[in-house]
Amino acid sequence: MDDNKNVVRRLKSIEGHVRGIERMVAEDAYCIDVIRQIQAVQAALSKVSTIILDNHLNSCLINAVRGDNPDDRERVLKEISEVFATSTKK
Amino acid sequence: MDDNKNVVRRLKSIEGHVRGIERMVAEDAYCIDVIRQIQAVQAALSKVSTIILDNHLNSCLINAVRGDNPDDRERVLKEISEVFATSTKK
Amino acid sequence: MDDNKNVVRRLKSIEGHVRGIERMVAEDAYCIDVIRQIQAVQAALSKVSTIILDNHLNSCLINAVRGDNPDDRERVLKEISEVFATSTKK
Amino acid sequence: MDDNKNVVRRLKSIEGHVRGIERMVAEDAYCIDVIRQIQAVQAALSKVSTIILDNHLNSCLINAVRGDNPDDRERVLKEISEVFATSTKK
Repeated sequence: MDDNKNVVRRLKSIEGHVRGIERMVAEDAYCIDVIRQIQAVQAALSKVSTIILDNHLNSCLINAVRGDNPDDRERVLKEISEVFATSTKK
Repeated sequence: MDDNKNVVRRLKSIEGHVRGIERMVAEDAYCIDVIRQIQAVQAALSKVSTIILDNHLNSCLINAVRGDNPDDRERVLKEISEVFATSTKK
Repeated sequence: MDDNKNVVRRLKSIEGHVRGIERMVAEDAYCIDVIRQIQAVQAALSKVSTIILDNHLNSCLINAVRGDNPDDRERVLKEISEVFATSTKK
Repeated sequence: MDDNKNVVRRLKSIEGHVRGIERMVAEDAYCIDVIRQIQAVQAALSKVSTIILDNHLNSCLINAVRGDNPDDRERVLKEISEVFATSTKK
């Protein structure tokens, strides 16, 4: 699926970014520059999460809500609520 | 609706919490104690958001996904994606 | 202190914002609109936290780091680390 | 420095975690499981940020605040304020 390829490509770029940060730390880069790079990686991961959630809403969720299994529907809605809770809580 | 009453009650308590923080600042409380109280308010707001999203998923979303209007469905899914994006991005 | 007045003014505006959200919920406003308003309040609170931390760094922190009491210095640095940890963790 | 080795070790583990998520996506794992893993990576990155900030406060910051260069001190305090602002804002 194209969406998966896009997500994998983004994750590979994030992996490379993390590797770059390891080098920065090993070479004793300035702490604040390292923290800024880590924050950039976190923002990139948030973007990936949002893409995946979007795909999920437009496929699994629709099927579960339209399907005949109320347990399935409940589970899918609960999961979305949970990932939102994790992302919003501090 | 009971859920609404519960949410309003939580918001009233948050409002009182904010008022308490105003007093702390006016009385020159220690900065770090003020920041911790602000972080507690943010956590309480996150909890309220999650409760509201949960209600939303179990009512509006189900109706929109099962309904006959594809524009409605698309809009509702897009909105959920957007509030998740805001909550997850740094 | 001017900074305190500025912070109190911002908190009063946030308090009013929360009161507005209570009304929205009581009048059965659309869930997503309510969540967006809560997210706006959280952003405003983050701004206030940053202003307070900034004041703190430029007063208490400088005094503690330059002072003769190593326990004081350690405590102040640890507190900053802790509020950062709370704000960054998900 | 030992702290740097500890940070590099954590980043290598995070890099491996990201690689694992790539595999999950390539093998079409369940969206919600992928999002949960991404959230776990973000939490691990937050922990690393906090460790680095802690080191920074206990070395560069102390030097800058005690040093003779007011520009240096201002810059260092401003940077801390900025990384806090990024981590707290939504």
